[in-house]
Amino acid sequence: MTDYKIRPIGRVRSPLRDRDQAPHQGRPAGVEAELVIDEKFLEGLDGIQTGDKLFVLCWFHMAECNALRIHPRGDPDIPKRGIFSTRSPDRPNPIGLCLVDVLAVEGPILKVRGLDAVDGTPVVDLKPYIGSLDS
Amino acid sequence: MTDYKIRPIGRVRSPLRDRDQAPHQGRPAGVEAELVIDEKFLEGLDGIQTGDKLFVLCWFHMAECNALRIHPRGDPDIPKRGIFSTRSPDRPNPIGLCLVDVLAVEGPILKVRGLDAVDGTPVVDLKPYIGSLDS
Repeated sequence: MTDYKIRPIGRVRSPLRDRDQAPHQGRPAGVEAELVIDEKFLEGLDGIQTGDKLFVLCWFHMAECNALRIHPRGDPDIPKRGIFSTRSPDRPNPIGLCLVDVLAVEGPILKVRGLDAVDGTPVVDLKPYIGSLDS
Repeated sequence: MTDYKIRPIGRVRSPLRDRDQAPHQGRPAGVEAELVIDEKFLEGLDGIQTGDKLFVLCWFHMAECNALRIHPRGDPDIPKRGIFSTRSPDRPNPIGLCLVDVLAVEGPILKVRGLDAVDGTPVVDLKPYIGSLDS
């Protein structure tokens, strides 16, 4: 099958410096971070406001997919299962999906709460959360 | 910024033959479709069961991103807004996000309800829906 090219639209700026510091999922930990969107995509942010909920799609550039069955949360006491039944970042296409709250919009910078991606992670898409579709 | 390569893990098999037939979002229309996962990723499905809710990430290979501000749902009566505040498929990285119900798992084929992607659309990731994170 054909491969496709994915092009970052921005980067995460976060106090989380490496994967060991990252919570297993961002939302419960309530980490505050910034999405620094490339100026050329600025127009695409029109309509995003403080208080919105957004899905942030990231590319976990430090992920390594070594196996299709893994111990969830890296815990050897949890039986192995298929990668697609887990949220591990170490997946064939390491796309992260994280629901965040928008705290502020300052030009190309979105301040958000609940992002589990480490500093420097490429952002590849943003989508509005729509309750009737997504829950 | 570096580009990344995304590699399909399977394809959508759907009665929806083209974009004109596709509902604006799959879930309300309750379309039934199949995800035909490539045999080499079969192990990754371990743990997915009938009754699960999954996020399906697709690559809208027929999308064309011509503008960063668009009329939502293609309706000229709705004022233009930024692409990242809409769920339009015509985005810089045309990744689709769709929450589906798993109706059956038959080896590498997942029968699902609620997918808005047309027949032949590449599937790039599957993630379990986790209510505490995703709503």
